[in-house]
Amino acid sequence: MDLLNKTLNNINQLCDAAMAKARERQDQLTKPAGSLGILEEISIKLAGITGKVISDVDKKAVVVMAGDHGVVDEGVSAFPREVTPQMVANFVNGGAAINVLSRHVGADVIVVDVGVAVPIDDASVVSRKVKSGTANFAKEQAMTREEAVKAIEVGIEVANELIDNGANLLATGDMGIGNTTSSSAILLALTGRPVDGLVGIGTGIGNGDLDHKRKVITDAISFHNPDRNDPIDVVAKVGGLEIAALGGLVLGAAARRVPVVIDGFISGAGALIAGCLSPLSKDYMIASHVSVEPGHRAILDELGLKPMLYMDMRLGEGTGAVLAMGMVEAATKVIKEMATFAEAGVSEKEG
Amino acid sequence: MDLLNKTLNNINQLCDAAMAKARERQDQLTKPAGSLGILEEISIKLAGITGKVISDVDKKAVVVMAGDHGVVDEGVSAFPREVTPQMVANFVNGGAAINVLSRHVGADVIVVDVGVAVPIDDASVVSRKVKSGTANFAKEQAMTREEAVKAIEVGIEVANELIDNGANLLATGDMGIGNTTSSSAILLALTGRPVDGLVGIGTGIGNGDLDHKRKVITDAISFHNPDRNDPIDVVAKVGGLEIAALGGLVLGAAARRVPVVIDGFISGAGALIAGCLSPLSKDYMIASHVSVEPGHRAILDELGLKPMLYMDMRLGEGTGAVLAMGMVEAATKVIKEMATFAEAGVSEKEG
Repeated sequence: MDLLNKTLNNINQLCDAAMAKARERQDQLTKPAGSLGILEEISIKLAGITGKVISDVDKKAVVVMAGDHGVVDEGVSAFPREVTPQMVANFVNGGAAINVLSRHVGADVIVVDVGVAVPIDDASVVSRKVKSGTANFAKEQAMTREEAVKAIEVGIEVANELIDNGANLLATGDMGIGNTTSSSAILLALTGRPVDGLVGIGTGIGNGDLDHKRKVITDAISFHNPDRNDPIDVVAKVGGLEIAALGGLVLGAAARRVPVVIDGFISGAGALIAGCLSPLSKDYMIASHVSVEPGHRAILDELGLKPMLYMDMRLGEGTGAVLAMGMVEAATKVIKEMATFAEAGVSEKEG
Repeated sequence: MDLLNKTLNNINQLCDAAMAKARERQDQLTKPAGSLGILEEISIKLAGITGKVISDVDKKAVVVMAGDHGVVDEGVSAFPREVTPQMVANFVNGGAAINVLSRHVGADVIVVDVGVAVPIDDASVVSRKVKSGTANFAKEQAMTREEAVKAIEVGIEVANELIDNGANLLATGDMGIGNTTSSSAILLALTGRPVDGLVGIGTGIGNGDLDHKRKVITDAISFHNPDRNDPIDVVAKVGGLEIAALGGLVLGAAARRVPVVIDGFISGAGALIAGCLSPLSKDYMIASHVSVEPGHRAILDELGLKPMLYMDMRLGEGTGAVLAMGMVEAATKVIKEMATFAEAGVSEKEG
């Protein structure tokens, strides 16, 4: 709890002076003011985060937090639980989508075992198991309050280690069969939103199973009655270990003034936990894509984030976030490399 | 006219067999089927275009067609006409947004003078001037029918030359003060859509000027009464030289079975001309972003294209298209590099 509290205390406001300077520079570059849209906004946000008009984002790392979910026993997922460790092995071997897309944008892939149900014996996986999968929250709390805090602190620690090693742009990713069920429960519990339209097919369950999944979630919330104003309580009762760790990763990045790109629905649930624990942390988040998973849009709205990629993706792992990392890097190159009107001898707007 | 007709005759359907094979491979990769959304769709479309399950898109080139517009005399633009050649110089010197973003994705920038009003003396610019800017279409035809065909054929020739030199992914870009006015006129003339919501601020005119711009466009269409079923007539009467050339570039790429990424509103107007001349050419187009310019959405609808980037951009030059080229390359890497369920030993979906 000390690390969590210390981290929350270290999250501060963006630097207005650097943002103003970045905005001023954008308006001098050879283009109509504002015409690069989100690329300009990102460069200004980065200035606020780093305190520099031109931010470096060349050391990129996506963190794939992995964990299992006891609620899979209720038949809420299209894929069996053993896929979690199988995909962890796939990440290590470089054959998963996140590996391919991370190579494409030049990001390192860090795989962390926060709570896979079976032992993971692989030196390439960061071993921080808090618990061998959550308990089935249809019947009991997913984890204890202490485990929830510990999982969040795993994320903070991983952020600190990566930043100590030079990372200047982080992204969130996830692997955990059953984790759309937990993410939906977190969203509903933290916001009090009605369930309609906020539960999706995850990896691909059918329509009948979707009704069942929705009932499992709403029953669990009625049963546990998590305290909306206490994110730790929500995580402990209906959360996931990897989702909590993603929340911690976001908090850790924010406390160190490093931007963090948020992937889809699961990462969004982690970011929502972070945003509830520290509203200031939202300023350090960069939205990436809009997932097909319907609750994702609600999470983005709650966080006040605007996505840039509409790719109809719903894979997780951080796949949308690393694609957006390419856009963030493009944004830094624009403010760094473009000529000004004066330098290029281009006439400015009339009147 | 021979080159145009020959090119139109050489545009054929996509290869269904290659698309089926690409779809089959996508379903074997270690992810829920369809979960990479547009990345999967692009890989399947590329297979249909190239006839190969795994397409190469490593030789990327964005073509910035430059031309001037006589209708600028009516006060429809926020920037003066001299900005067209000034920006051409900026492109050559590598200081414009398109240079920065093209370097980011590894694309060559080809600048073509199709119709800049003043002489361009620079060996780095491809010199194919059809006319020194269009006539003011508020008062007379923008160009003759022969000039319209010639401008389209410039685009075909440039596509052929780039493809002969190894390019396997093209993108469209534009530079021409006043060209949102011409693009709006082309859109209205080719589709018969009402003017409401289809004319925007371009580089940044004010609200009062927007009403004037709208009136200039609708008056010109009433005056010239272009034949909706004759795209060449539309181009000649209210078109732009660079916009016509962009249409030709798309047709040239399609005839050679090379995919072409379409930028924003101006490029969209060029693509619309291509799509009207050859409906089959639409299958070779890949949409990139949605421009702030309001008519762009209508053009995408007309072409049946789905954009992937929502960046609030409105710069043109090909800036949105080159960012999307990075996504197209990511799509080819996914189908090429990802492990299958069998290779990775990952369990497939249950039931």
